[in-house]
Amino acid sequence: MRITLAQLNFHVGNFTRNRELICRAIRSAKDQGSDLVIFSELSVSGYPPLDLLDRYDFIRECSSTVQKIADECVGITAIVGAPVINQRPGGKKLFNSALLLSEGKIIFSVNKALLPTYDIFDEYRYFEPEKSFSTFTFKGLKIALTICEDLWDEQPFDNEFEKTRLYTISPMEELAKQNPDLIINISASPFSYSKVKAKEEIFKSKAVRYGLPVITVNQTGANTELIFDGASSVINTRGEVVHRLPFFEEQTFTFSLDDALLQGKAGEETGPPVISLIHKALVTGIRDYFGKMDFANCILGLSGGLDSAVTLCLAAEALGKEHVRVLLMPSRFSSEHSVSDSVELADRLGVRYEILNIGKLLGSFGETLAPFFEGREEDITEENIQARIRAVLLMAFANKFNYILLNTSNKSEAAVGYGTLYGDMAGGLSVIGDVYKTDVYRLAHHINANGEIIPRHILEKPPSAELRPDQLDTDSLPDYSILDSILYQYIELQKSLENITVPGADTALITEILWRINANEYKRYQAPPVLRISSKAFGAGRRMPLVARF
Amino acid sequence: MRITLAQLNFHVGNFTRNRELICRAIRSAKDQGSDLVIFSELSVSGYPPLDLLDRYDFIRECSSTVQKIADECVGITAIVGAPVINQRPGGKKLFNSALLLSEGKIIFSVNKALLPTYDIFDEYRYFEPEKSFSTFTFKGLKIALTICEDLWDEQPFDNEFEKTRLYTISPMEELAKQNPDLIINISASPFSYSKVKAKEEIFKSKAVRYGLPVITVNQTGANTELIFDGASSVINTRGEVVHRLPFFEEQTFTFSLDDALLQGKAGEETGPPVISLIHKALVTGIRDYFGKMDFANCILGLSGGLDSAVTLCLAAEALGKEHVRVLLMPSRFSSEHSVSDSVELADRLGVRYEILNIGKLLGSFGETLAPFFEGREEDITEENIQARIRAVLLMAFANKFNYILLNTSNKSEAAVGYGTLYGDMAGGLSVIGDVYKTDVYRLAHHINANGEIIPRHILEKPPSAELRPDQLDTDSLPDYSILDSILYQYIELQKSLENITVPGADTALITEILWRINANEYKRYQAPPVLRISSKAFGAGRRMPLVARF
Repeated sequence: MRITLAQLNFHVGNFTRNRELICRAIRSAKDQGSDLVIFSELSVSGYPPLDLLDRYDFIRECSSTVQKIADECVGITAIVGAPVINQRPGGKKLFNSALLLSEGKIIFSVNKALLPTYDIFDEYRYFEPEKSFSTFTFKGLKIALTICEDLWDEQPFDNEFEKTRLYTISPMEELAKQNPDLIINISASPFSYSKVKAKEEIFKSKAVRYGLPVITVNQTGANTELIFDGASSVINTRGEVVHRLPFFEEQTFTFSLDDALLQGKAGEETGPPVISLIHKALVTGIRDYFGKMDFANCILGLSGGLDSAVTLCLAAEALGKEHVRVLLMPSRFSSEHSVSDSVELADRLGVRYEILNIGKLLGSFGETLAPFFEGREEDITEENIQARIRAVLLMAFANKFNYILLNTSNKSEAAVGYGTLYGDMAGGLSVIGDVYKTDVYRLAHHINANGEIIPRHILEKPPSAELRPDQLDTDSLPDYSILDSILYQYIELQKSLENITVPGADTALITEILWRINANEYKRYQAPPVLRISSKAFGAGRRMPLVARF
Repeated sequence: MRITLAQLNFHVGNFTRNRELICRAIRSAKDQGSDLVIFSELSVSGYPPLDLLDRYDFIRECSSTVQKIADECVGITAIVGAPVINQRPGGKKLFNSALLLSEGKIIFSVNKALLPTYDIFDEYRYFEPEKSFSTFTFKGLKIALTICEDLWDEQPFDNEFEKTRLYTISPMEELAKQNPDLIINISASPFSYSKVKAKEEIFKSKAVRYGLPVITVNQTGANTELIFDGASSVINTRGEVVHRLPFFEEQTFTFSLDDALLQGKAGEETGPPVISLIHKALVTGIRDYFGKMDFANCILGLSGGLDSAVTLCLAAEALGKEHVRVLLMPSRFSSEHSVSDSVELADRLGVRYEILNIGKLLGSFGETLAPFFEGREEDITEENIQARIRAVLLMAFANKFNYILLNTSNKSEAAVGYGTLYGDMAGGLSVIGDVYKTDVYRLAHHINANGEIIPRHILEKPPSAELRPDQLDTDSLPDYSILDSILYQYIELQKSLENITVPGADTALITEILWRINANEYKRYQAPPVLRISSKAFGAGRRMPLVARF
């Protein structure tokens, strides 16, 4: 039997695009003599459709698109993912289904049983969990078709007290009783740099446990903040990866099941290094945000610091240098280097830049406010005004020339509220808002690996917001290596205060940092969507109450 | 048997406050000879705790607080709500439990079975659903203790294709088999002006169906955007409301069960009119946002329009006139009335105001940008700059004097994106962001019911953003009566395009409005939390993809 893995980049709600992608892959698979072509979870609608699933017209469109795809399946069979109306008397209105399409008909369907409802996942918001399980026979092979989490009944969580068995049933245990010959898993599983290995381990362990080959097809490309890594795979009964499709790229791959399973030698066992995956993920995230929204051009403020430099490099790579414009907006607090380093970087990348000194605007605000602020010391207010003037200028360019403003904040500063709401926190998309400062340095070195692009001085000078004379980040924050370690243990690992240990940080410092994280929930509430690369990003996957005390 | 309903205002994660509220109510109930005092769902932690439930230290604090409360229960029994660790081998790590406390011990517990996971509810994110049910006997009475949704296995949804039975089991059907004498329901059910009657109908119908009295205890007060209406009740076996506690107020109420059930005459059958409930909800929402965050003072921009006028009245009522300050920031596009009407309103309320003309600042931005915008027409860019200058000024006051900026946008403009991101969309809390413009008028008339507070001219003049000469809202929007009807059918009722009918609106107009709603998801993504009064507010209860096409 010849099988085709179709690892594609779907767009939520864009039925024309998704259908065309799917139908083209079906035709090409047929040309290659394939018997079965497999698409990812909710491929028809794109993942995640979120509350579009509450719209009846959206569901009808899913259904009619499935029919059109089924009509394409002549002499070939396809597995697609789609939301399907629950016709039973009670429960949620939909199932998250995998549909077997052949000769114009849905000949078999499976509904997802384990509905991830944690972090960025809200599947029980929409779907009824399936409680019965059956295999289907195709070309003489009995196939256990599973949808994403259904094969992940056991998984490691970082949380201090989450169970590894998040569910009380195991779909694969049920399916195994029917003695299948092959496991297929379709998923829409977003990238997280710390979970790449763990995800593959789950598939490998199932292959070994059941003594069955496992074929996985994952979505690729980005939808808003979620970046799907693809890396679809064929795993033999010994738990060896025989084929792995690339990360973050569309690919259809046809193979003979018999050949694959006979292969004694495993394929590429280790994926690319983590930092290059993060790099590729962020470029994919930017590219798809713009491409799927039909935007071409971006703008960002280049401060002379590391964060905006890295963001610029990623944007230029994703969109092309001619689609990126930067503003340099020095004040009297900006160091000379800030402008010269920024100019050097922009020139190296071939990106258009403008220099706007904000001194006069700052003066005008000072004059307007002077009568009311008389007798008051300068404080954070005046620093924020600088950041906000820059945002007004950037947004003016964005509005006038139809650019999207890219936000350049990193995760460390977003965590502790080291940023100005409606100032440097503005933007349509946060590019490195899920990247800790220490990892921003790693990204910069990775970008410079084949020759200096980001000027060395930007990498070497101590970080500063340059909002008052001689200001340094370390005036109000610990060293980033210490800060990031505290943040990671609190945010990603969800450790309690007493379990957080960082060399060089005492309890008072850790307590203060945790307090700052919590006290700044209100700022992050209004932050732009953040490209997600970790297991716990700010945004939809982390829902903290604002009016709370803990 | 004497029973006490304790309708209290809990604060998420504030264990000291919650414990003191609970223990005080227990002591006072004991003084009144009560046998059983009933608190609302998750009373120990406050509702909704959201992702604080992922923190092990938070759960430990819940547990130790429960023990302290149990120690207070000497000679009296209490029912409290708390998250409790799931000790079974698989499933989510917690239960949402009701605990019966007596003489220092948990003597009985019930776990919630039906976990609302829709709109603003995410309970399956945290809790394992219970699958077995039992009553308990207290003072000779067999009691069916249920938690909120457990009694709402059937409920009407506005959605076009949601089932009225959202679950496949009915806890009360199971409990009824054990022949209970009384139903108790504890809840944390947020206010929605269109659901007040429906909620009570559910309780009444259960009383009639099972021929049992129903006692309900709901949380009151607000936590961030959610406002809990209280209105706890005692319902007799004929489905008549014998007692109803007030809306949006704390109250403990002790009564004799026998007397209550003998009462032939029903109590107050109809609650207060809807507009006064909305008014009270919004005032509660502001008051608790500030009170629970330990903020005292707010600031807002008074434009001379209706929205900021109504917001100001609500803020002055919630916080006291001396805790409210307003800025009037006219430009050359502002009408003369705008200032004089605003001054009149501020004077009537006794609120401090300042006038800052933004003309000079606008000029400075114009000069700075002129070299880059040469040859370009004035457009939305220049309008946005005005709105953003005002936000910078308001935030400068907020930063300098430690005020919270109140946002004054209404739901109609938020829906169609008629507002400036980082401009008039700024603020720590959106007061009327869930109130359609036509309802803002109703609120204004309600505020003026006992004498004119909001100047009549503000109510009578045609709405305008005053960002260019002679601008009117109707230049770019249909009449608000038409607009709001389209919005309500699309947002609250979740109707498909072809099912939306509004006299005076053709398909082209409706299509355009729906397009604008969808095209502006990105703006609302960065909006402040919105006090929720409807069944579908912007914010956490409405999760639409940004990068989508539908």
